[in-house]
Amino acid sequence: MTNEFIFHSIATVRSCYKEKFGIPRQSGLSDSAKSIIEFNAPYTNEEFIRELESFSHIWVVFVFHQHLGKDIKPTVRPPRLGGNKKIGVFASRSPFRPNPVGLSVVRLEKITRDYNRIQLHVISADLLDGTPVIDIKPYIGYADAINDSVDGYVDAKPEHHLEVVFSSQANSKLEKILNDDPALQSLITETLSLDPRPAYADDDTKEYAMRLNDVDVRWVVKEGRVKVLDIEELK
Amino acid sequence: MTNEFIFHSIATVRSCYKEKFGIPRQSGLSDSAKSIIEFNAPYTNEEFIRELESFSHIWVVFVFHQHLGKDIKPTVRPPRLGGNKKIGVFASRSPFRPNPVGLSVVRLEKITRDYNRIQLHVISADLLDGTPVIDIKPYIGYADAINDSVDGYVDAKPEHHLEVVFSSQANSKLEKILNDDPALQSLITETLSLDPRPAYADDDTKEYAMRLNDVDVRWVVKEGRVKVLDIEELK
Repeated sequence: MTNEFIFHSIATVRSCYKEKFGIPRQSGLSDSAKSIIEFNAPYTNEEFIRELESFSHIWVVFVFHQHLGKDIKPTVRPPRLGGNKKIGVFASRSPFRPNPVGLSVVRLEKITRDYNRIQLHVISADLLDGTPVIDIKPYIGYADAINDSVDGYVDAKPEHHLEVVFSSQANSKLEKILNDDPALQSLITETLSLDPRPAYADDDTKEYAMRLNDVDVRWVVKEGRVKVLDIEELK
Repeated sequence: MTNEFIFHSIATVRSCYKEKFGIPRQSGLSDSAKSIIEFNAPYTNEEFIRELESFSHIWVVFVFHQHLGKDIKPTVRPPRLGGNKKIGVFASRSPFRPNPVGLSVVRLEKITRDYNRIQLHVISADLLDGTPVIDIKPYIGYADAINDSVDGYVDAKPEHHLEVVFSSQANSKLEKILNDDPALQSLITETLSLDPRPAYADDDTKEYAMRLNDVDVRWVVKEGRVKVLDIEELK
């Protein structure tokens, strides 16, 4: 039997996260993060998703496409552990894996059909824009929800532990943008409160930037508080 | 960007289920079903699983290898729905999928290391013997356990609803075998009580057979009761 398998993309993710930096480290951490999963032909036939709407949650099996073909080491240093503890890749959810396959459960908000497009609108994905999806499966509570699991070095859900404030400049830009993108403020707040900086960050003068939807956000972290300095529209 | 991705087998499943027929339809349905996941080279380096032992449950991402290259239809008829309701493949966990990737959470009982072999001993897998595994990930409760999911047409955990009795012939064979395979009786009982017959089965004279570990089991179902007729050792 062959040892290799060829899979293809059945759908593509459209997400607010345009870059790897800043993406929440698991799904379920931000209710403002909405993504669209759009089926590719020939899966634009409605029959493929018949009855999917009766499920509240779905599994997205996807490819960490920016990690394809990278050299793989046996261990990773998860950012949550401060970046200085080594964990085997198979004991981690890191994207740096022998087969860069990712797994996220997301809430299925609605399904829209528009001519030849079928779009799954999902909430709380940790998925990069452009991510290729190789499978969609319904979440089945009796099989998938383990309530007494012991989660090793992963103790608890990460806290939204940082307060987020906006500079007056960021605030005035935000006001104009909120007409087009009313959820942007909570998306920025939820994303930055999770503190997406690298674990070893301790220089409180350093500015960070990330792209969310159609804006670039710049911020600093001082004394446990995120200050959003500026928000710049791309278009 | 290419639309195709090549993945390789990182490990192989050794399981009591030697044939597709009779395998429980999800993981978690039989505590007597133990499987071994044995890593392939170069993943026989212990570093790849460092800290994995601290997790109680793991995800097995695998290939439905007997379904590779099969023609795929947009819908399937899940056996649990009596085989006469059509469901989109992406609304099902059927192995007949565009990319035949499977997903099972299993309990990690122990890890053994023996020269160049690393084996994960897992409980309650729904995996066919010889299944190629493309990824192992730790189960993380806060991300993976959704307690309020609405599971569409999947209402509840299947019941072990059939009583299982053994003929005197089956009993006397079983007694001899139990020395080598003490869990065989409960494995047979748990597997058959789930009623692995096709949904349209209603002929109570029909004999069924399946292979479990190193035996062939033959049975009939009469008036809601499984009668094991015979158990035949293969070696």
